Amino acid sequence: MGRWKKAQALAAARGIDALLVTPGADLRYLIGYEAKPLERLTCLVLPASGDPTLVVPALERSAALAAGVDIEIASWTETQDPFALVASIVGPAATVGLDDHMWASRVFALGAAIATADQVLTGSLVQELRIRKDPDEIAALRDAGAAIDRVHRRMGEWLRAGRTEREVGADIARAILDEGHVSVDFVIVGSGPNGASPHHEVSDRVISRGETVVVDIGGTTEVGYCSDSTRNYLIGDDAPAGYDEAYAVLFAAQQAQREHARPGVSAESVDAVGRTIIAEAGYGELFIHRTGHGIGQETHEEPYIVEGNDLLLEEGMAFSIEPGIYHEGLYGARIEDIAVCTADGLEVLNATPRELVRLPG
Amino acid sequence: MGRWKKAQALAAARGIDALLVTPGADLRYLIGYEAKPLERLTCLVLPASGDPTLVVPALERSAALAAGVDIEIASWTETQDPFALVASIVGPAATVGLDDHMWASRVFALGAAIATADQVLTGSLVQELRIRKDPDEIAALRDAGAAIDRVHRRMGEWLRAGRTEREVGADIARAILDEGHVSVDFVIVGSGPNGASPHHEVSDRVISRGETVVVDIGGTTEVGYCSDSTRNYLIGDDAPAGYDEAYAVLFAAQQAQREHARPGVSAESVDAVGRTIIAEAGYGELFIHRTGHGIGQETHEEPYIVEGNDLLLEEGMAFSIEPGIYHEGLYGARIEDIAVCTADGLEVLNATPRELVRLPG
Repeated sequence: MGRWKKAQALAAARGIDALLVTPGADLRYLIGYEAKPLERLTCLVLPASGDPTLVVPALERSAALAAGVDIEIASWTETQDPFALVASIVGPAATVGLDDHMWASRVFALGAAIATADQVLTGSLVQELRIRKDPDEIAALRDAGAAIDRVHRRMGEWLRAGRTEREVGADIARAILDEGHVSVDFVIVGSGPNGASPHHEVSDRVISRGETVVVDIGGTTEVGYCSDSTRNYLIGDDAPAGYDEAYAVLFAAQQAQREHARPGVSAESVDAVGRTIIAEAGYGELFIHRTGHGIGQETHEEPYIVEGNDLLLEEGMAFSIEPGIYHEGLYGARIEDIAVCTADGLEVLNATPRELVRLPG
Repeated sequence: MGRWKKAQALAAARGIDALLVTPGADLRYLIGYEAKPLERLTCLVLPASGDPTLVVPALERSAALAAGVDIEIASWTETQDPFALVASIVGPAATVGLDDHMWASRVFALGAAIATADQVLTGSLVQELRIRKDPDEIAALRDAGAAIDRVHRRMGEWLRAGRTEREVGADIARAILDEGHVSVDFVIVGSGPNGASPHHEVSDRVISRGETVVVDIGGTTEVGYCSDSTRNYLIGDDAPAGYDEAYAVLFAAQQAQREHARPGVSAESVDAVGRTIIAEAGYGELFIHRTGHGIGQETHEEPYIVEGNDLLLEEGMAFSIEPGIYHEGLYGARIEDIAVCTADGLEVLNATPRELVRLPG
């Protein structure tokens, strides 16, 4: 069954008369159309029964056709009201479902245009489908993993003492494109104390010998799947005091998590396995984030590997395993792989060494 | 007065007790903080009176400080409820204002967490401030225009017969980064009949001699302002039948629009001036979109240069002027400059030739 037909069946089962899906990962997943998230409304109208319609701005009609959209297309010109058009396609409805990332302005406009219907969120409905990757999707994630691995393997070309994080980051961004991505999603180069800020990006800080650097990078490939991998580099021979001990604990924790994760175990248990090791070594307060996030057409999606998520992992679920230890003012370290559950185990999609990588500086 | 203080004054005047602003251009504009649009909630709580608070995930607290956030920060850890935190900061409120691009999931979650308050959109409130650029912003747009002009000037290095649009687009993307942007926002390489699809991006179509190519490209600079410029290229000596006549009309229309736009004239009149020229020459049906969009920290923002927008232009308003003629199945053409209203006229921020550029192919 096609993806939109599966979503339609879920909608019908939940008493939702129509799903309304604006540009983003849900739309790409359901009908394979990647529309720019711009101000003109594009919206999939997927009724609980019957055929779907894609509402597009007239000037994007040919782009939608060229992209292979094979459902009915309804277009609106610059001076027409697209929300009234959506309402006319929806027809009488008691409940309409909105994608989780729909803009507030559209939530309000659709609420006014389809005034008699209740609005509910449907993100979780589409996520139920997206959370289990099929073999083509897993192959796409495998390719993405290999692409970002090629960038990490070249790190010595750019990362050395005397350069700023920003300079190194610009080189990495180009390499992300050169090595098999069509977009650069993020580049974190956290040198020295900046490594202790998990979502640091780049700065004008000059990297020095004797410093460790957290490099967390990712992009999206031509077929629309994301990569995400973190490795740790040392410029010169000796890491700061205390770093090697912390890194050994982190390495053991991440390894234990990779060995634990498989179908049938809970998402939160994967988090707990690593957190316990880190806490027992005395670094518990320094592991300040969850273990991971699902990944697919979005860098962050379900399942989240976090305390409180008792979801049992299943074949086809793909996610990051990325514990970290952050010593504010001194250093940080994080080891991150993307992995996917196989029928009875785990395939890890990144293959570069997880040990601290020493660069001559 | 600081920007957030101006927004606060507007909120108070409209009876909005607190503005809630999630990551995006409004947040960057108001407090200068660029947060990644990820699943963990970051939200500015700006009460109609009193001091604002930025709610951030704990793991991004140091990133927010490093980015220069100088208002109160409240952080939440991975297992806390960020919406309850926002509600506790808002306190008793009858009306809360949401940014236009807030995700539906957050609209719903904030609606539940602040159950007694009405939700209204506040996009137009912040847009009222953003729509008039100050001298620093105009300088940033000028730099962005010069950066994208440098890319257009190098087009002959990449655009030639025998290559695919995708190959040319990949080279352009690298050059957008090399010439002074930190991100590539869009790359349209519309060759031959693909030029007739205004929002075409790239494809595997091989470019041939005797074809015209619409190249519409833009990126964001380090300081966060966007570029956007379209030029037209001919591979070889002779354009397709009918093209030169259409291009002459388009050129005249765009020139007339640049000569017309200035403080005191309406946005829709700028559209009408070009549309009339194109229609009188018999191409009216082929100009299938509005004339332009505002630009700043977003590629598309207010003011829109479109029929029905009777807004009078003012000093500091920046927008594109980009009429087009699209002959489906044959060719397309579009000429686009970014311009900003001065005290008594118009400064055009792109300076490459607007004539059809002939490349040897």
